[in-house]
Amino acid sequence: MCDVCVIESVKRKMLSRRDLFRKAALGASAAALSTTTFSTPVLAGGPGRAEDMTHELHEDFPTFFGEQQFFRDQKFNYEEHKFNLLELRMNEHTGTHVDAPLHFSENGQSVAEIPISNLVVPLCVIDIREKAAADADAQVTPDDIKAWISRHGEIPDKACVAMNSGWDKHVGGEMFRNVDADGKMHFPGFHVEAAQMLLETPTIGIATDSLSLDYGLSPDFATHYAWLPENRWGLECIANLDKVPASGAVLIVGAPKHRGGTGGPARVMAMV
Amino acid sequence: MCDVCVIESVKRKMLSRRDLFRKAALGASAAALSTTTFSTPVLAGGPGRAEDMTHELHEDFPTFFGEQQFFRDQKFNYEEHKFNLLELRMNEHTGTHVDAPLHFSENGQSVAEIPISNLVVPLCVIDIREKAAADADAQVTPDDIKAWISRHGEIPDKACVAMNSGWDKHVGGEMFRNVDADGKMHFPGFHVEAAQMLLETPTIGIATDSLSLDYGLSPDFATHYAWLPENRWGLECIANLDKVPASGAVLIVGAPKHRGGTGGPARVMAMV
Ligand SMILES: [Zn+2]
Ligand SMILES: [Zn+2]
Repeated sequence: MCDVCVIESVKRKMLSRRDLFRKAALGASAAALSTTTFSTPVLAGGPGRAEDMTHELHEDFPTFFGEQQFFRDQKFNYEEHKFNLLELRMNEHTGTHVDAPLHFSENGQSVAEIPISNLVVPLCVIDIREKAAADADAQVTPDDIKAWISRHGEIPDKACVAMNSGWDKHVGGEMFRNVDADGKMHFPGFHVEAAQMLLETPTIGIATDSLSLDYGLSPDFATHYAWLPENRWGLECIANLDKVPASGAVLIVGAPKHRGGTGGPARVMAMV
Repeated sequence: MCDVCVIESVKRKMLSRRDLFRKAALGASAAALSTTTFSTPVLAGGPGRAEDMTHELHEDFPTFFGEQQFFRDQKFNYEEHKFNLLELRMNEHTGTHVDAPLHFSENGQSVAEIPISNLVVPLCVIDIREKAAADADAQVTPDDIKAWISRHGEIPDKACVAMNSGWDKHVGGEMFRNVDADGKMHFPGFHVEAAQMLLETPTIGIATDSLSLDYGLSPDFATHYAWLPENRWGLECIANLDKVPASGAVLIVGAPKHRGGTGGPARVMAMV
């Protein structure tokens, strides 16, 4: 899908929303539906929804390095001060969060510099749950991407390609990090060759439902180093990919916007 | 606009997006546009866009209490470690941020508990720039709301009603806090009677482009106490309200989702 098409499809939705506003304002008179090109029934199709693709963040949220990365300090409390207020301390790469290009590059975009047009994007979901259930070291490979394309068509412009390994279901237990007797982690991720293949497409982001873009066994962050320096972004610990279609949803990445940030906890939604 | 209408308008947009995906996939054949009720031209209407309603957050961002509330600590740097990573420390109520109901109540919703359906909402913008330019103590009053309604119709279900006082333009200077010789601040906000009036409507959020929901002179946070305990939310320091229409945009509040949070820096967007 080209830039113009994305913009125009958003516009089309907004025009139809304006109709709805106007319709509500004028008492649902059909005559109110007048200023746009739309005349299709408002209630055509089944129910649509926004899905929350974000895990709740808390002190015990599992981390890549294995140590606590999120802290809360209650500075004011209702009983004493008649309002509540917390101070937060966190490693940027905690919870459902963005990896900005700057995370693995010298001069890539900070999280505040990612253009907003790169944060409202088509979502493509690659389902590797079956092989990940059989092998925690499973990776998204070029063949998985080719299979998605042959079924759903070319990857749309500025898409986010997401790995659904089923790993979000493990977020509350030891299986999320899945550390062996040698201290090595075992969870799925993107194979570096898959990232290299996606660099040849207009894909702008990759997302994983595990702790890293790379699989847990990776000795060298090969996928991070292939992907992020190209001013593409990553999302880690995304949730609920099983609630959205393989093709056709729109991902909205509510990335934080702090100066010089290398990423950070984000509110991620999908419009389905 | 009723719940069903909001959901269906989103669905309508998404159906049309699926068409576009399919169209792209099949080489732009007109025959590909087949499975939905839409047959209107894709490129009808002018260009649409996503607007970023979020200020960049940094150490010197102005705060209500006047002291620094955002801190960065670079834990890893590219030159030494071959990747960059920051630890952040922040007061939740810093930058463009959400006030969750829990901020001014004993048991209201935390920021993690606000339903996602309350975070993707119609945006109503009340423009008080003229009176705010003449008087920094200006407030949104019931009359301002009545004037908006008479021009644009009833406030849609779960709307966010936003004050555009022009104050976002002062964010880089002393005028944002505008402290007088007695230490009192002067900036616009919502009059408590306006908040009370909106409680009688289906409005779910109020937003200001200044440092508080209450105007700077408020001695008692009257608007906070009227609004937030009703499980409605607030947004403070919103940016760029002059780039969106008074009616018809959709606000997307990328609120943080930390357990027990009273609010926090958010990525706020408007679909126009
Ligand atoms: Zn990360
Ligand atoms: Zn606040």
